[in-house]
Amino acid sequence: MLQDNGMRALDRQECLRLLAKVPVGRVVYTRQALPAVLPVNFSLDADSSVVLHTSAASGLVHAIDGVVVSFEADEFHAPTESGWSVVVTGRAHVVTDPVENERLRRTGPRSWMRVGDGVFVRIESEMVTGRELAGTCGSD
Amino acid sequence: MLQDNGMRALDRQECLRLLAKVPVGRVVYTRQALPAVLPVNFSLDADSSVVLHTSAASGLVHAIDGVVVSFEADEFHAPTESGWSVVVTGRAHVVTDPVENERLRRTGPRSWMRVGDGVFVRIESEMVTGRELAGTCGSD
Repeated sequence: MLQDNGMRALDRQECLRLLAKVPVGRVVYTRQALPAVLPVNFSLDADSSVVLHTSAASGLVHAIDGVVVSFEADEFHAPTESGWSVVVTGRAHVVTDPVENERLRRTGPRSWMRVGDGVFVRIESEMVTGRELAGTCGSD
Repeated sequence: MLQDNGMRALDRQECLRLLAKVPVGRVVYTRQALPAVLPVNFSLDADSSVVLHTSAASGLVHAIDGVVVSFEADEFHAPTESGWSVVVTGRAHVVTDPVENERLRRTGPRSWMRVGDGVFVRIESEMVTGRELAGTCGSD
């Protein structure tokens, strides 16, 4: 549905399809009572949760394990002032199940940072919202 | 300085130089006690504050006027697993000074959304942090 401001709300399936197209998104959380944000590479799991791979000792894991966070990804094109953004909101938790961990070691994301073995963090896709900005298509 | 995880911390000047290169960043704030994030086009003002243009009636303005928020921008390149991200943290406020408003109408950003006259929101760059991931340069 096109809104007054020129944005179109995306349904869950459109959001998940777009999310699967990009390699990097941003974890949005609270750290020391301030809004915090960290870009990470990720993959979408079969249940539509977002999976990250990071260091077990990272401040990120400490801050978000067991906590509701948001995860945002987008793509914008400046010449046409168009693009989309998707936000997944849900509880984040470190994957502790050995079978799940083994599966993710084979098929899950591998951090672009040097994190050693690392751990996998799953963000449940409890709420998925998105919007698309159709843009000017190069005209005024 | 290169960290163990392969990231290099960027100084304030490097951060501001990178921030000036990209048209879109993300406001990170709290809405109804949940972490929230909204991508917007922006410009850097001469005092290194981040300036946005949005609807006076927007939920964003309501949520962030007078509040400390974060503003993030980044660029990543998947084939080399490299990129950078910068986070500005500071108080956001609607620009109310008529002289400032007039100057921003001439030289400030114009929202990519349809917002009518809109208002300008300034995020002070009280804290500016950034990091760079040098990546694999195409090798393993």
